[in-house]
Amino acid sequence: MDKLKTKIIEEGRVLGSSVLKVDSFLNHQLDVAFLNEIGKEFKEVFKDKEITKILTAEVSGIAIAAIAGLHFQVPVVFAKKTQSLNLDKDTYEGEVYSYTKEQHFKIRVSRRYLSKEDKVLILDDFLANGEALKGLRDIVEAAGATLQGAGVVIEKGFQQGGDQLRSEGMDIRALATISSMEEGNITFR
Amino acid sequence: MDKLKTKIIEEGRVLGSSVLKVDSFLNHQLDVAFLNEIGKEFKEVFKDKEITKILTAEVSGIAIAAIAGLHFQVPVVFAKKTQSLNLDKDTYEGEVYSYTKEQHFKIRVSRRYLSKEDKVLILDDFLANGEALKGLRDIVEAAGATLQGAGVVIEKGFQQGGDQLRSEGMDIRALATISSMEEGNITFR
Repeated sequence: MDKLKTKIIEEGRVLGSSVLKVDSFLNHQLDVAFLNEIGKEFKEVFKDKEITKILTAEVSGIAIAAIAGLHFQVPVVFAKKTQSLNLDKDTYEGEVYSYTKEQHFKIRVSRRYLSKEDKVLILDDFLANGEALKGLRDIVEAAGATLQGAGVVIEKGFQQGGDQLRSEGMDIRALATISSMEEGNITFR
Repeated sequence: MDKLKTKIIEEGRVLGSSVLKVDSFLNHQLDVAFLNEIGKEFKEVFKDKEITKILTAEVSGIAIAAIAGLHFQVPVVFAKKTQSLNLDKDTYEGEVYSYTKEQHFKIRVSRRYLSKEDKVLILDDFLANGEALKGLRDIVEAAGATLQGAGVVIEKGFQQGGDQLRSEGMDIRALATISSMEEGNITFR
């Protein structure tokens, strides 16, 4: 998606060797008009797949998935990272390791909102080591639902998650794939 | 908003004396077509106010604010609850007490994404004790921006946040206000 690449080059900030900050439009401030174009693009990319539900993880997948949901015309469910009085006790669980927060944690979806009849599309902002997608796949499998594919806005192609998950059969599409990055220089595959 | 009241009655689950679960459409599973109607309604309610930015707090405000942003055609910023490598160090802060999680925490917005020129609309899912709105107001004030108003999907009118914040001058509009609730019986104001 050319406009996405332009936006990453113009607004992205590279920190160290692996952190790309795109918080001007994707995961802190939200350029909602642009997220709407991203949602439309995901619908185009997955137009041949039957999708009954979009699954993402809090926090940074929510806005992307919600707006994409308008194009797919299906409900969106976001997996929760924290236990709270508001979450049902009866959940499907997945495990995720966060490299940015340097800790393992569980993500959970109430059993009310995913069933074996569902045909699920996973959406997220980034794919790097694939931890979030793995945790979300755990949840889809626990529900006995069918995983139809996964869409990510930005894939860090120089990290191993995408290759590994594709070799395990996950149909992953990235709207932009970065092959290398350093301060002032981002290269796309 | 009549359709919202119907949805609360049909899908809401009352737990104890003050917890209303609406996670089938508002804050776990997202009925995005309905959130789109909510966004349109907020735009109608605040049509006379100039708004340059929508501010909300993670997690449950994000989907509502993002979809409403499409109707207001302005960027959305969500305040973050956790420190992470991905958040700028230079932030505006607000303090919030969560009754559901029984703890105080800070919410933060990068100084890049709010300025004294901004005319801000705060959006959130619930208004009960008003803690989230207070924390978000702190952030607007710290930025020197203008607070134009606050929209909430559901106000628990039997709790004190709305009365208190309105008496302090905040222009708050709720799409549905609950005057009392107990299992099997929700009354609207």
